[in-house]
Amino acid sequence: MHQDLITLKKICKPIENDLKEFQLEFDNALSSEVRLINSISKYIIKNRGKNIRPILTILSSRLCGEPTPNSYRAAAMMELLHIATLIHDDVVDDATLRRGRPSINKVWKNKLSVLMGDFILSKALINMVRLNDFDALKQISTTAEKLSAGEILQIEKSITRTMTESIYFDMINQKTASLIATSCELGAITTSKLEEDRQSTHSFGQYLGMAFQIKDDLFDILGNESDTGKNSGGDVKKNMWTLPLIFSKNNMTRSQYRLLNKLLNKKRKDGHILKKIYHMVEETGGIDYAKNKLDDFSNRAIDSISSYPNSVIKQSLVDLVGFNVNRVK
Amino acid sequence: MHQDLITLKKICKPIENDLKEFQLEFDNALSSEVRLINSISKYIIKNRGKNIRPILTILSSRLCGEPTPNSYRAAAMMELLHIATLIHDDVVDDATLRRGRPSINKVWKNKLSVLMGDFILSKALINMVRLNDFDALKQISTTAEKLSAGEILQIEKSITRTMTESIYFDMINQKTASLIATSCELGAITTSKLEEDRQSTHSFGQYLGMAFQIKDDLFDILGNESDTGKNSGGDVKKNMWTLPLIFSKNNMTRSQYRLLNKLLNKKRKDGHILKKIYHMVEETGGIDYAKNKLDDFSNRAIDSISSYPNSVIKQSLVDLVGFNVNRVK
Repeated sequence: MHQDLITLKKICKPIENDLKEFQLEFDNALSSEVRLINSISKYIIKNRGKNIRPILTILSSRLCGEPTPNSYRAAAMMELLHIATLIHDDVVDDATLRRGRPSINKVWKNKLSVLMGDFILSKALINMVRLNDFDALKQISTTAEKLSAGEILQIEKSITRTMTESIYFDMINQKTASLIATSCELGAITTSKLEEDRQSTHSFGQYLGMAFQIKDDLFDILGNESDTGKNSGGDVKKNMWTLPLIFSKNNMTRSQYRLLNKLLNKKRKDGHILKKIYHMVEETGGIDYAKNKLDDFSNRAIDSISSYPNSVIKQSLVDLVGFNVNRVK
Repeated sequence: MHQDLITLKKICKPIENDLKEFQLEFDNALSSEVRLINSISKYIIKNRGKNIRPILTILSSRLCGEPTPNSYRAAAMMELLHIATLIHDDVVDDATLRRGRPSINKVWKNKLSVLMGDFILSKALINMVRLNDFDALKQISTTAEKLSAGEILQIEKSITRTMTESIYFDMINQKTASLIATSCELGAITTSKLEEDRQSTHSFGQYLGMAFQIKDDLFDILGNESDTGKNSGGDVKKNMWTLPLIFSKNNMTRSQYRLLNKLLNKKRKDGHILKKIYHMVEETGGIDYAKNKLDDFSNRAIDSISSYPNSVIKQSLVDLVGFNVNRVK
């Protein structure tokens, strides 16, 4: 088994039974009377990710109390929301790889991907309503807005070439960290409901989410296809500004800047050009800067839950932060 | 002014002020801090449709009582839901025309269309939660599921070529009538909340919605581009089975059937081929059959609200049914 998975399995040990409850909720949530929907669902379930968001909801719920049926429902819902955005991402990016297999839109075409994403969103909504909890609904609906608004903001800044570090942090907060923060906060909302618990778990998730995106940014510029299961250099190729690039851009000589722009402006960026871009960013400190920020956000995540007494659950949350820093996928 | 619009203006006369309240809710609902989102929203608002769904919510609310702030919110939400599905439809169909202007995806590309559709869905969700009404939420979430499930069912049947009349009615009920039925029922849910009112308005909307889709099917086979603002023959071109085609297929000789299949199987269907298909369907009674069904569903819609005392509001609902039968767009 891959090292990442071994680490994750250890982290999940204290919530093994909870994850089975989640799995039941999840499997039921996608059922339909339409045969084609069930075929696509099976394909999706077979190619599932690492369940990071449901794991976070359940760990948070155990940090704040005892999981309720709503905790498992909320966990299923966050995973559905995440999967729907992945499927829609595939459409819009025309990515050919997602977790190392042909993405759904290559198998079922764009039309079905958009509709299937919408179908899963509607199932998340049905699950959401079943929570019967307006606090949860408010939190989730504003999160849903941030997911798409964050991505559109990213495109706007890529078109107008006006991405700054502070806009970048705002953007990844919306498009990545908000969903992870809400996944954690739902652990509190579905158990103790205490404002204090909500704030702590939300902060934990938000900082972890920021660290998660920065790690992905680093993969984008460092990684390779077989390692990450994603097309590496994808963001660089599409002129999406990632943190290492933003830092380096602001910390290079004018002649370096002109050269970088020339490389970024090339319509087709082959491995040779991507390597050149990488070396310029490395040389001008962009990689180190992003790694420092990754550590910084990771520490802030751990600080957010420092007031809770030590326990296997708390340890698993801390280990998840470390898991992100060290993951090779 | 176009005859359709004159008729519609007359129908809306008794709810002129209500529609202003709806408009306020709607304009506020789409606001964002992201500039690109606001540009796209402006483009969408400029190219709005006929507001049929909000008109139905408001007329229904006045049929059952006095509109509440929630009635206007619900009206805005149904229009948002409708617009989001239109935008996603544009992506998946790669349609070049929508209401006679270049569709959003030609201006902003597929990526933004998917994300903008998702953004509008999330805004509909936020609006939904503000209703603070679980009856409404349950109704809306199952409707959202039907919208995408109905479209996926249509694709499945088009791929497997196993569309029957009864599956067709199930399919248009899900993909078109359910949203219109819920638009009407929300008029009752946000006012009297009486089960009887909910059932009557729901039935009215459901039958009207069926009639609406059959009218669109007739446009697809009869209409022309400048008349309908949509690409005519779009469904026929994509081998989507519409009601006239389904009836004719079952009521023609085997040699006619072979010829029809040959025409439908052609990858590129020019005007000449579409005309041939039209004549075969006309000859074998498909057009007349669909027109009869259109009248049938229209009458059933009117019957659904027959127990209400006569009023200008009831008359407007009846006139809307007639508007659909006679509309030329």
